[in-house]
Amino acid sequence: MTEVLVLGAGRVGSAVARDLARDPSFTVAAADLCDRALAKLAADGIATHLVDLTDPDALHALVRGFDLVVGAVPGPIGFGVLRQLLESGRDVVDISFFPEDPFTLDELARSRGVRAVVDAGVAPGLSNLVLGYLDAVMEGASESFSCQVGGLPVRRDSAWEYRALFSPTDVIAEYVRPARLRRGGQDLILPALDEVETVHVGGVGPLEAFLTDGLRTLLRSLDTPSMVEKTLRYPGHAAKARALRDSGFFGTTPVILNGVSVRPLDLTSRLLEEAWKLRDGEADLTLMRMEVVGLEGGERVRHVIELVDRYDRASGVSSMARTTGYTCTAIVRWLARGGWQRSGILPPELLGRDPACFDFVVACLEERGIHLQRSREPAAPEPTP
Amino acid sequence: MTEVLVLGAGRVGSAVARDLARDPSFTVAAADLCDRALAKLAADGIATHLVDLTDPDALHALVRGFDLVVGAVPGPIGFGVLRQLLESGRDVVDISFFPEDPFTLDELARSRGVRAVVDAGVAPGLSNLVLGYLDAVMEGASESFSCQVGGLPVRRDSAWEYRALFSPTDVIAEYVRPARLRRGGQDLILPALDEVETVHVGGVGPLEAFLTDGLRTLLRSLDTPSMVEKTLRYPGHAAKARALRDSGFFGTTPVILNGVSVRPLDLTSRLLEEAWKLRDGEADLTLMRMEVVGLEGGERVRHVIELVDRYDRASGVSSMARTTGYTCTAIVRWLARGGWQRSGILPPELLGRDPACFDFVVACLEERGIHLQRSREPAAPEPTP
Repeated sequence: MTEVLVLGAGRVGSAVARDLARDPSFTVAAADLCDRALAKLAADGIATHLVDLTDPDALHALVRGFDLVVGAVPGPIGFGVLRQLLESGRDVVDISFFPEDPFTLDELARSRGVRAVVDAGVAPGLSNLVLGYLDAVMEGASESFSCQVGGLPVRRDSAWEYRALFSPTDVIAEYVRPARLRRGGQDLILPALDEVETVHVGGVGPLEAFLTDGLRTLLRSLDTPSMVEKTLRYPGHAAKARALRDSGFFGTTPVILNGVSVRPLDLTSRLLEEAWKLRDGEADLTLMRMEVVGLEGGERVRHVIELVDRYDRASGVSSMARTTGYTCTAIVRWLARGGWQRSGILPPELLGRDPACFDFVVACLEERGIHLQRSREPAAPEPTP
Repeated sequence: MTEVLVLGAGRVGSAVARDLARDPSFTVAAADLCDRALAKLAADGIATHLVDLTDPDALHALVRGFDLVVGAVPGPIGFGVLRQLLESGRDVVDISFFPEDPFTLDELARSRGVRAVVDAGVAPGLSNLVLGYLDAVMEGASESFSCQVGGLPVRRDSAWEYRALFSPTDVIAEYVRPARLRRGGQDLILPALDEVETVHVGGVGPLEAFLTDGLRTLLRSLDTPSMVEKTLRYPGHAAKARALRDSGFFGTTPVILNGVSVRPLDLTSRLLEEAWKLRDGEADLTLMRMEVVGLEGGERVRHVIELVDRYDRASGVSSMARTTGYTCTAIVRWLARGGWQRSGILPPELLGRDPACFDFVVACLEERGIHLQRSREPAAPEPTP
């Protein structure tokens, strides 16, 4: 019996808690600062704790007695919470997608003998597992990796044709943070929302794909000479977001208006929270397309892996919560059954190098109706420079 | 010698003052609340007055001694200023494009024996003259009128591909105010920024044209059963503006942010003022395309009138100031020479019904390098219902 505590009872945290609670090998509790979010879980028989997770003492007292903690808190507080969890000596699976470099906590994790999987969602997360898996299979490592991923509303009826499946502030942060990528072995930093291209994924499209900073740990873990991550939206979204960004609407420097100081980002987040709100019962869609090129048996091959997942009306769980949460719970199960023993910060690509782990996660997702379409084709030889 | 006072020394007001000052039949003075704007005119030998134009007493004292006043003030104060000018018994040519109905001042104008031409710019203004002229020429009046018009930057290098050639607040007001139009003899009100279509005007394009509330006095003056006005922008602008509008960024209801009350429109105007600013010496472009259909000599004909005007680098006068200002000064000249005698509120379409006036205005514009391309072709017969 593994005692699991889920920190954060938002859309994804709740789906994680419920999925684990259905499994007789886990005892599950959830903690949040928000009464309402917890009440729904409590109604389903999950133990709940109303706690300010940014208070280190409260956090340490809370996690005592749990074997493993899932971090599903908002990005801006994710790194601080993770550090406290490592201090407290608890194993962690984190999906808070904080902007800081998790490897700076590696020594702390090792010194406490803690296994801490970070970025354990769908992308980053499942995408990292896929690349780790294929990179290990290929001869001399993979040559290129591209990932296009996005969560979208099914109905395209608003000015933005978009709904934020997590906090709008985190979405805006993705549009502001420069994108790190690698081309021809060179690490590059380019503005987010750049290099917009029109694509189709899993038969859905046309969509637009643009640069965001989604590679994260991959740039450190792997030497793949070409790596790029793009976010998917319905066409036109990037231009609108760029217009806002480039006009200062995402700015954090206060502007004085009629003698009053206002941070543009505060107003923008407030307005977009309403405009981008996923309505109760509104269907969403998760799309991901990965391409990995490399040598296998002396031949250059291209693996194309696509995922198309939709809102589950029966359970009321959004597709974003399904794909993110169930990748997370698969990894929780893998750790719980001792699938990985070494302590330290563990990016998912490291877990994926073990085919048993990769197959296990894919099987867990299949059981929950999330399918990876995988194909493999000969790839053109490298262009001669 | 006609003594003219120009109220408002902005881009257009300054161009009006300078154009009239070059003419020996006028003595010209300018008034504004802004020192800097006046200083430039004073340097060119134009008498200037630093006055708060919203102060009725100051305004009445100021206009005494002038024969004719040009109203070139910001839209929001335009109607109030016009009312004071009528009270003071001065002839007026107004280009402040205020949102209120000018005809509510008609009785006042008549009682004071004042001639007051409103909407005396390029569109509304020149476009009204054109329609008034053709409507008078056609048998049984015109059947349909369409006008597409916009001022654009020549260089398309910003997120918005747009520069505000007058106050951004006035541009935003155009995107918020519902558009009045007429179809099949029925007056309609539709949201601004709707019915986006892709067009080419004068060889420039693709552009987008969308509904705005530009018909104004025409809907009252003429019975033409089909009338529509659209604004021209580079493609994508309407979708961005709509995203802002529909998310509340143009809202005037305060939002409470960290205990402080903020009107979204105030912040948006501040940010777009910077983002939409026409840089010194930056070239702009004015595009207008009108179509008027009706019967002439028993035949149904379509008149197409196009205007393409560019920034005049030699004089440094923007194209928007040229086309708006020089239509205004042509009308000032027409009044000054006694071309129209009756008092009251005069929309330009009324002046245009007199071919002598229309030809005079077109000749004045020609002299300043502003050319109307006019063509006339057979039109398809009315579709049988």
